[in-house]
Amino acid sequence: MRMTGEIAAIHEIVRSLPRPLGFVPTMGALHAGHMHLVNVAREECASVAASIFVNPLQFGAGEDFVTYPRDVAGDSAKFEDAGVDALFIPDEATIYPPGFSTTVDVGVIGAVFEGALRPQHFVGVTTVMTKLLHIVQPDVLYLGQKDAQQTAVLRKLVRDLAFPVEVRVVPTVREADGLALSSRNAYLSGDERAVAPNLYRALSAIQNALRAGARKEDAVAAANLPAEFDIEYFDVVDADTFVSLETLRTPAFIIGAARLGTTRLIDNIWIAA
Amino acid sequence: MRMTGEIAAIHEIVRSLPRPLGFVPTMGALHAGHMHLVNVAREECASVAASIFVNPLQFGAGEDFVTYPRDVAGDSAKFEDAGVDALFIPDEATIYPPGFSTTVDVGVIGAVFEGALRPQHFVGVTTVMTKLLHIVQPDVLYLGQKDAQQTAVLRKLVRDLAFPVEVRVVPTVREADGLALSSRNAYLSGDERAVAPNLYRALSAIQNALRAGARKEDAVAAANLPAEFDIEYFDVVDADTFVSLETLRTPAFIIGAARLGTTRLIDNIWIAA
Repeated sequence: MRMTGEIAAIHEIVRSLPRPLGFVPTMGALHAGHMHLVNVAREECASVAASIFVNPLQFGAGEDFVTYPRDVAGDSAKFEDAGVDALFIPDEATIYPPGFSTTVDVGVIGAVFEGALRPQHFVGVTTVMTKLLHIVQPDVLYLGQKDAQQTAVLRKLVRDLAFPVEVRVVPTVREADGLALSSRNAYLSGDERAVAPNLYRALSAIQNALRAGARKEDAVAAANLPAEFDIEYFDVVDADTFVSLETLRTPAFIIGAARLGTTRLIDNIWIAA
Repeated sequence: MRMTGEIAAIHEIVRSLPRPLGFVPTMGALHAGHMHLVNVAREECASVAASIFVNPLQFGAGEDFVTYPRDVAGDSAKFEDAGVDALFIPDEATIYPPGFSTTVDVGVIGAVFEGALRPQHFVGVTTVMTKLLHIVQPDVLYLGQKDAQQTAVLRKLVRDLAFPVEVRVVPTVREADGLALSSRNAYLSGDERAVAPNLYRALSAIQNALRAGARKEDAVAAANLPAEFDIEYFDVVDADTFVSLETLRTPAFIIGAARLGTTRLIDNIWIAA
């Protein structure tokens, strides 16, 4: 594996790799979900590039940018073991040099749900992803389904601006008890970790209620999350636009977000067409 | 020359062309300035692509989008004669399909001067250029210096977002009497055409006064434009940031914009470092 923090150097490296090139962008703090993305990319592409960049632009004031878990040495060893060919680890000044002022905004799809609770979050995501795609120039972009709205936002970005890349959304990896893997699970106390899988159970309950013919309103009411959770939203949305659906129309996501203590958990279930 | 309005087809075409590939994006209504861009690209690159797209996003309400001169048959013949290899002529629905909602914004450099007088103009320019660059994937982007702020905005776009393209700014082509070539010169009446070269003379007068050591304020006062003109601005700006300069620092542009009847004319003089 070749790794660098320099744009010119990663250009050189990726230009020398056999195509198609898969790309797995991350903020580090790698878990089995990230490694699954690498493995799928490995299977489907001739080469795999990855990046580690904790993107300040996608964190709001008071969010966990400073405390976000960082372990570049451990992460790069994991990528190397997984067979990644090229790793891009830029510092902040490489991505956002003095005077940087450009933003990329996908509009309303980035302003609802996560975007409503985290203003500017998706502008940060789409801006950094635009730059990373220009730098790495992959053929296929691998994204985890865990961040469902992010996958919809980035698919829209790629579609609207005609990026020459294919987007592959890879199913969420879960613990045995159903909890979706997330770097932020590290924030959970023992008690919180024990109750955390109820978020996925709530989403599954909504799915079952919908399958049984319940109206969305009643299905969402069936979510029945334990009192430890502070619910932010449950909804059923169009998978492409993230418009809230009154009547189920596929493909869709059942989405949910809740706080458990100081930790925000989000999760979703995909309903195929 | 191969021409198409389809994204997939132009992808195929440019992929087959020898590199480096130069790209000349236009709104059509071609004049000798555009053809000079093609000729420079022809000299410097192995292949040349061009586009014709009158971009609605960069026109404001009440501007000349509907009446902007269009002559695709004549324009494509000119490109063919000039040795262009690939011509992309998308229709509006190809660039902005239903549901399109993404914008690219370079910030304050796009909000001053032309951006102040034409709100959203440069958001339209940077959004369409992002998409065109993704579609055509050139190695070198050729821009005319005539639209000085546009060259600064697009150089900043490319720099901030690390587009894998080099930007070449090509000097303005002028009529014998000094008037900068522009598709909008077609709007001028005979009387207006006769007085129009005074805009460039005014910029030259400012340049001479600066060279003679005048302070910017006094130099700009020396512009002395005939009364037929409605002055919008004269200034001296940093060539990279378009920040107004109190003391001359190079590289810089002397810029000017004025209305002559219903026609807006803009022009500039480059002051090299």
